[in-house]
Amino acid sequence: MDNQTLLYLVPVCGVVALIYAFVTAGWINKQDQGDARMKGIAEHIYKGAMAFLAAEYKVLAIFVLAVAGVLGALYMNDPASSPLVALSFVVGAVCSGLAGFFGMKVATRANVRTAAEARTGLPGALRVAFRGGAVMGMSVVGLALVGLGTLFIVYVGMFGIDTASPNQADFSRVINVLAGFSMGASSIALFARVGGGIYTKAADVGADLVGKVEAGIPEDHYLNPATIADNVGDNVGDVAGMGADLFESYVGSILGAMILGAVAVSGGFEAAIIPLIIAGVGILVSVVFTFFVRVKEGGNPQHALDGGAFGAAGVMLVLSWFIIDYFIGSAEAAGHAIELEAGTKLETMNLMIAMAAGLVSGVLIGIVTGFYCSKGKRPVNSIVEQSQTGPATNIIAGIGVGFESTAIPIILICGAIFAANHFAGLYGVAIAALGMLSTTGIQLAVDAYGPISDNAGGIAEMSGLPPEVRERTDTLDAVGNTTAAIGKGFAIASAALAALSLFAAFRKLAFPNGDEIVLSNPEVLIGVLLGGMLPFLFSAMAMKAVGDAAMDMINEVRRQFRDIPVLKEALLLVKKAEDEDRSLTEEEEKSVMAAGEKTEVERCVAISTQASIKKMVMPGVLALVAPVIMGFWTPHALAGLLVGTLCSGVMLAIFMSNTGGAWDNAKKQVEDQPRDHANNTGKGSERHKASVIGDTVGDPFKDTAGPSLNILIKLMTIVAVVIAPLIAI
Amino acid sequence: MDNQTLLYLVPVCGVVALIYAFVTAGWINKQDQGDARMKGIAEHIYKGAMAFLAAEYKVLAIFVLAVAGVLGALYMNDPASSPLVALSFVVGAVCSGLAGFFGMKVATRANVRTAAEARTGLPGALRVAFRGGAVMGMSVVGLALVGLGTLFIVYVGMFGIDTASPNQADFSRVINVLAGFSMGASSIALFARVGGGIYTKAADVGADLVGKVEAGIPEDHYLNPATIADNVGDNVGDVAGMGADLFESYVGSILGAMILGAVAVSGGFEAAIIPLIIAGVGILVSVVFTFFVRVKEGGNPQHALDGGAFGAAGVMLVLSWFIIDYFIGSAEAAGHAIELEAGTKLETMNLMIAMAAGLVSGVLIGIVTGFYCSKGKRPVNSIVEQSQTGPATNIIAGIGVGFESTAIPIILICGAIFAANHFAGLYGVAIAALGMLSTTGIQLAVDAYGPISDNAGGIAEMSGLPPEVRERTDTLDAVGNTTAAIGKGFAIASAALAALSLFAAFRKLAFPNGDEIVLSNPEVLIGVLLGGMLPFLFSAMAMKAVGDAAMDMINEVRRQFRDIPVLKEALLLVKKAEDEDRSLTEEEEKSVMAAGEKTEVERCVAISTQASIKKMVMPGVLALVAPVIMGFWTPHALAGLLVGTLCSGVMLAIFMSNTGGAWDNAKKQVEDQPRDHANNTGKGSERHKASVIGDTVGDPFKDTAGPSLNILIKLMTIVAVVIAPLIAI
Repeated sequence: MDNQTLLYLVPVCGVVALIYAFVTAGWINKQDQGDARMKGIAEHIYKGAMAFLAAEYKVLAIFVLAVAGVLGALYMNDPASSPLVALSFVVGAVCSGLAGFFGMKVATRANVRTAAEARTGLPGALRVAFRGGAVMGMSVVGLALVGLGTLFIVYVGMFGIDTASPNQADFSRVINVLAGFSMGASSIALFARVGGGIYTKAADVGADLVGKVEAGIPEDHYLNPATIADNVGDNVGDVAGMGADLFESYVGSILGAMILGAVAVSGGFEAAIIPLIIAGVGILVSVVFTFFVRVKEGGNPQHALDGGAFGAAGVMLVLSWFIIDYFIGSAEAAGHAIELEAGTKLETMNLMIAMAAGLVSGVLIGIVTGFYCSKGKRPVNSIVEQSQTGPATNIIAGIGVGFESTAIPIILICGAIFAANHFAGLYGVAIAALGMLSTTGIQLAVDAYGPISDNAGGIAEMSGLPPEVRERTDTLDAVGNTTAAIGKGFAIASAALAALSLFAAFRKLAFPNGDEIVLSNPEVLIGVLLGGMLPFLFSAMAMKAVGDAAMDMINEVRRQFRDIPVLKEALLLVKKAEDEDRSLTEEEEKSVMAAGEKTEVERCVAISTQASIKKMVMPGVLALVAPVIMGFWTPHALAGLLVGTLCSGVMLAIFMSNTGGAWDNAKKQVEDQPRDHANNTGKGSERHKASVIGDTVGDPFKDTAGPSLNILIKLMTIVAVVIAPLIAI
Repeated sequence: MDNQTLLYLVPVCGVVALIYAFVTAGWINKQDQGDARMKGIAEHIYKGAMAFLAAEYKVLAIFVLAVAGVLGALYMNDPASSPLVALSFVVGAVCSGLAGFFGMKVATRANVRTAAEARTGLPGALRVAFRGGAVMGMSVVGLALVGLGTLFIVYVGMFGIDTASPNQADFSRVINVLAGFSMGASSIALFARVGGGIYTKAADVGADLVGKVEAGIPEDHYLNPATIADNVGDNVGDVAGMGADLFESYVGSILGAMILGAVAVSGGFEAAIIPLIIAGVGILVSVVFTFFVRVKEGGNPQHALDGGAFGAAGVMLVLSWFIIDYFIGSAEAAGHAIELEAGTKLETMNLMIAMAAGLVSGVLIGIVTGFYCSKGKRPVNSIVEQSQTGPATNIIAGIGVGFESTAIPIILICGAIFAANHFAGLYGVAIAALGMLSTTGIQLAVDAYGPISDNAGGIAEMSGLPPEVRERTDTLDAVGNTTAAIGKGFAIASAALAALSLFAAFRKLAFPNGDEIVLSNPEVLIGVLLGGMLPFLFSAMAMKAVGDAAMDMINEVRRQFRDIPVLKEALLLVKKAEDEDRSLTEEEEKSVMAAGEKTEVERCVAISTQASIKKMVMPGVLALVAPVIMGFWTPHALAGLLVGTLCSGVMLAIFMSNTGGAWDNAKKQVEDQPRDHANNTGKGSERHKASVIGDTVGDPFKDTAGPSLNILIKLMTIVAVVIAPLIAI
């Protein structure tokens, strides 16, 4: 088979993933939805989520068309590229939006069905939740490869590239036009993460502060009118937001490796399509391994998930050797060995070492991240300890832990950069990023399975299902944590490596004459400082949005608790039972249930929806406009800007994620303590209140600003790549 | 007069400052100390402060000798420089230590005398407090110029520099050896800031949380055993720490300009001594303007302070024109015009524009900083508003404000870099940094006057002086704020500019062959990432130290409140009076006073002292060791490290300072509200409690980690400059 033909297999692999997703979604829809109450709550969540998505996509549609117009106009002097850049951008945005839509649709179907299965046992619930996640995962990778692969084939044809020995300049143009796809994906991802993050955290903060802290009722209690918004938020933020995020990462790392394959090494076509083929094979491996994720009653679901994710990654590593070896051989057979620089031939083993370096650093970062955020380990223990003296010391300790947690991951990332670059140059760095994401299909299935189980737990709680149901869903939610932590490690490491490879690509494209970006140039230093500032300004906007929206939510919940008399009485009943650590009597239960019907959940949903749509715009625009302004001043300053944003953005992202995670688990650890108010331990103690406050502060850290920063870094870099030919000097 | 002779005037100016300080200190000692109770409390504070200094300097002495030994050993291959680098380092460290010692000695004398004067009126109190600050200011600049000037003269003689037309290589060596002085100063400053910051905040957090929040007694109340430690801390942190900090900044900016004068422009000697002469004249101007700072009863002390500080800065700007013009003329007369690069002659007006750019950006940053931290402005209002819903939203809002507040200062710094570089190259950037600090003598007098007034207020409170005394000292403390805000702006801007010029100097010294530091070099990028991480790790250590020490303090205060029966009763009396918003009756007053005698203040002092000494070591060592390790790997990575640290360090420093300041004033604004628990406003309300928690979290931000970061950035850069010849390639 020649390389041209192999290329056609890429979108085919994507289609396989989409078929898998389609069939699995059908299976999920056929599962039992439980009783009427569960159906009602699930319907609330489904409608809330879809309403948000509709409102969001309306705004994004205008935005996408406007940016496409601007891109087309900027490229005016290059009539061949102009419409194609705009097209790539629109296709990228649409595919990303679709991935979010599919993922959320299935997640809001799978949550209630997981809860229904959890009434009878663990294996069925795991099956539904995991398959829900798998639909999401396969939609993401499927749409990415169909979009990216098809556009690439089309553009290769349109620009008349000879795949056996492509003309370097034309090939650069193809890749550059294709970068619009990645820009579209990253733009949508940023909006989805920021908007979803604001939505979920406004609801979460509002629900927790008034419900848990002020009224003293349990989390997710159906008396709390913000709980539905909170559960919608989990879907909007953790599912749709995460889907768009991983779509962006996946596309970014493939494209970064393709660009470097095209511009950084001589020999051309093979190096540029290796990433596509690895991604395609990765999909097939992911699909196969989803079938291995199953557990018997009494079995350990952790092993099932780990087996699936790690098994796929391991098999993929082996297959990568054959793929790389095949293409290096094919290039040599065609008489143009792939050379990193004049005279240094790329060896299969060296590229494999680069890839392994990425994987190892990703896994280790995941373990370190786990250490900093897990119950019972030194960092979380220290926060629990400091919560003894109140919220102030809890916050100080948490921030200290988060700051500290940047150290080892950064050292590991630097180690991976060093090793990958040493063995296979910047192309190796790009392949290292790709290596971590090649099995995104199944990794994301495991990631998305978490929020589905979480949501199932919320539904169980709100429907008044017996406590063992909630326990089962909690077990499910918890077992995904190890894999999710590793996934987080991959996200951090691959973001840094992908940004770095995109940066290298930008340099090649913006300085075709080989000019260097020199650190002692004041323009570069000005760029570095401004770039370093942007993640702070961006986070400020996100935090402020959550703070404002949460306050609206708090005031609304307080109003309902104050103004709805039956609700007020029911709250006192529940709090009393909580304080006495007993369940409600049947009679109490009934009156409380009735009061729950009186809550005005739609008002809370509306507050979150409006706030998030309105407040997601400015941060997104900032990310797009800043690199354009700097670039048209001078590409040197833009280069500085990118490095500055990478430098402070990666730190802030790690800091915010880990601080939030540590506070979250510190709170959980306090809740696990025996209730003993004399020793200030356990639920209801002052220590518990302090730890809830820390957890609340951590919410916008870990779920709004933190994860958006990884996207910000890459979006700015990909914008720079797209405009590079326009500002080239 | 030839240039050689002019040089002798530099240490002479320093001696003038020291004589002024000596005479003024004598005058202060002769002032009235008030009644026996005041004397007793002042003596406690004095002893606590001196005990800390003794303990600190003991550790630092060992450290200084060890580093001097290492420096000497590293320079082994250059027998002429080896002992001199070590000597410079020791002299710099000793001068910095002496400046801190003098400042603290006079501050702990002036505080009680200010309180004594405040019993009768404002003017006398202002006079004592300001002169106390002036002793500190003049000690700092005097010791700096005596040390730096004398060493320079000696080294010029030892290396046989022909001042009319110096040999470039020999002259570089002189400057390089002289850089040891700056390294010594920066090392001590870092330890003093970190140690002092831990001390003061452990005490402050401990005192506030148990006293204000738990027991409900007013700030600085003598029933609180941590209050003395808190007041000692104000001296240790705000006076000695700030003194060492400004000593470091002052020396760093002079030295940065000297190095660039020596290595970055051709023509040599004149450009290198312009900074010294400007600094010398700046001292004389500062001394003269201290005599203008006086106020009549009923007059506005704000005008007096502003008149002194701004008057001096204005006159200095005019005089700078003549100084620069003189030296440019003198260089031309000697037949070697000062050239920025081949063919571009340095013009007086251009260098003045650079200097003005620095001053303008510093003033504007001060105004912006003021905006973000002042009562009644949008940012602080938003925090007050969000405190309505509790501590979590207060914290989220504050962090949002702090993140946002990085934006404009960074843009202003970039503007200053652009303008200074555009008109006068990197030498212009260095002169811009120096311009802001040329009147440090009087600026620091105004800065240090704040903590002295603050301490006077504490003494007034603890001695049970009538409330109008405390009001007067509060007035004094408050009026220094504008000038202090501008001073903060200068500190931020000058730190960034000085670090940049030191970085430029490092590049010239480490790459004598003219090699460039290229951003696409992975070694540089690894350096940038690691460098970006260091300020986070450093801040983590500082935050953790404060958290741990504060918890020890809290437990100790709680123990005393619990275990000392008379104290327990007295607390209840005071809290009751507070709640009823009335003063104590005479009888109550007496019993409370008696209970105050029973507090065990020494235990609290000991906790702060031990914690701060122990915990200051690691962060300091990190700052010294990291650049050395990177530099000996490759100077490219070290260059990246410096830029990364600058990039994230400046942001974190601005963020932490402003967040802390905004929380502080949000709390004060809530305290100014009418007490109305229905509307949740004023002292004692839930909103107040939330704002106190924010203020407490802000304490280590603004007084421990934040101000240390500016020093960290410069210390790492100056270490790089010192080792540059050893790692040069």
